[in-house]
Amino acid sequence: MQKIVLIFLMKTLSLFQIKDGANKGFCDTIEPGDIMINYPLKRPPQKTTSSSVANRGMDLEEAINQTNDHYVANDIAYIYKKPIPIQVVKVDYERRSAARISEAYYKIPSTTDYNGLYKGKYIDFEAKETQNKTSFPLKNIHEHQVLHLDHIAKHGGIGFIIVAFTKLGKVFLLDSQYVKAFYDRAVEGRKSIELSEFEALGHLIPEGYVKRLDYLKIVDTVYFQK
Amino acid sequence: MQKIVLIFLMKTLSLFQIKDGANKGFCDTIEPGDIMINYPLKRPPQKTTSSSVANRGMDLEEAINQTNDHYVANDIAYIYKKPIPIQVVKVDYERRSAARISEAYYKIPSTTDYNGLYKGKYIDFEAKETQNKTSFPLKNIHEHQVLHLDHIAKHGGIGFIIVAFTKLGKVFLLDSQYVKAFYDRAVEGRKSIELSEFEALGHLIPEGYVKRLDYLKIVDTVYFQK
Repeated sequence: MQKIVLIFLMKTLSLFQIKDGANKGFCDTIEPGDIMINYPLKRPPQKTTSSSVANRGMDLEEAINQTNDHYVANDIAYIYKKPIPIQVVKVDYERRSAARISEAYYKIPSTTDYNGLYKGKYIDFEAKETQNKTSFPLKNIHEHQVLHLDHIAKHGGIGFIIVAFTKLGKVFLLDSQYVKAFYDRAVEGRKSIELSEFEALGHLIPEGYVKRLDYLKIVDTVYFQK
Repeated sequence: MQKIVLIFLMKTLSLFQIKDGANKGFCDTIEPGDIMINYPLKRPPQKTTSSSVANRGMDLEEAINQTNDHYVANDIAYIYKKPIPIQVVKVDYERRSAARISEAYYKIPSTTDYNGLYKGKYIDFEAKETQNKTSFPLKNIHEHQVLHLDHIAKHGGIGFIIVAFTKLGKVFLLDSQYVKAFYDRAVEGRKSIELSEFEALGHLIPEGYVKRLDYLKIVDTVYFQK
């Protein structure tokens, strides 16, 4: 009898595990900086062994978000990161006061990560990190994002990408016209943008303390002094 | 013995129910148009008993999204709805190919629902429905959204709200300066914007078939013919 009870209990438990994915081995808690499997735009794993000044504080997204907060707080610009698009499938109501999403999936973003307003101009950009020391692989950017930035430029907006070479401690701004040109080149040629091309056509963004990545200073130089 | 087994089973099951919120009664599937409890910006429940022409096809969000798709497809404007911000707590990896979010919560959006680019101008707005026939209650808009729209206007962008009176079949565009003024009035006075005030200061957006809610036609009149 006890054996039957045990089997029944195990079956009952495993039913719940399959249904809810609550099996310990298949379930992890996501912390800031962790990798989400199959989320297409999430940055690659960062080694924590290095501790040089160049690499320290090189979380690009965090640096941009902090800088944007500074811009908003000082009434300089209103640029925000768009939320990650998520398809919600199931919501539980454990308490009336808090809906708990219990099943959802990541979706591919339809545009770029950041957009907003600066000096009367529409600003739109995508931010990417690479651990590569010599070039930025174009597979890190979706085609529809390249096309989106191209449309933005053609309609009087300002579009660019910000690329951080984390191993080199260098962050570049590259205008959308070059992104488009390099993306077109990749059809039959090189599938990446060379570091030397960033140095020749892009603009180095210096890192700071209060404004961690003051990219609008570069935007001023590139787009507002014509 | 059987009674003990039964009690043990029930306890085991209820443990899982509490832990995973998998109790049938507490768990629902969300379909498009369903209400999410406690999601602060979701529209109120819509009665399906009415079937007048005015009410038919009055899903404001869907009408705006379809119109935006039309604008993008015809290279007219690049305006998108921002994804709903969600705080992800747990992700399961049932298969390597698909990450399944198993615990997440809705967050309050930091800005407005829609923004983008039209004729070189930054466009930013919030869209709301009301079933009220005589006024639009201001509790439907967050204070930080009103302030955001005010900042946008001051920095050379175009900011407004779109409000649909679903029972009347009327949709209005109201410039951010009036939204701010009515919000300020609410501190000591009326907590809503009257229908007559929309009629006097706002602009009726006609509904169509191809462009379901051609609000850029109104934007042309209000912001580009000065």
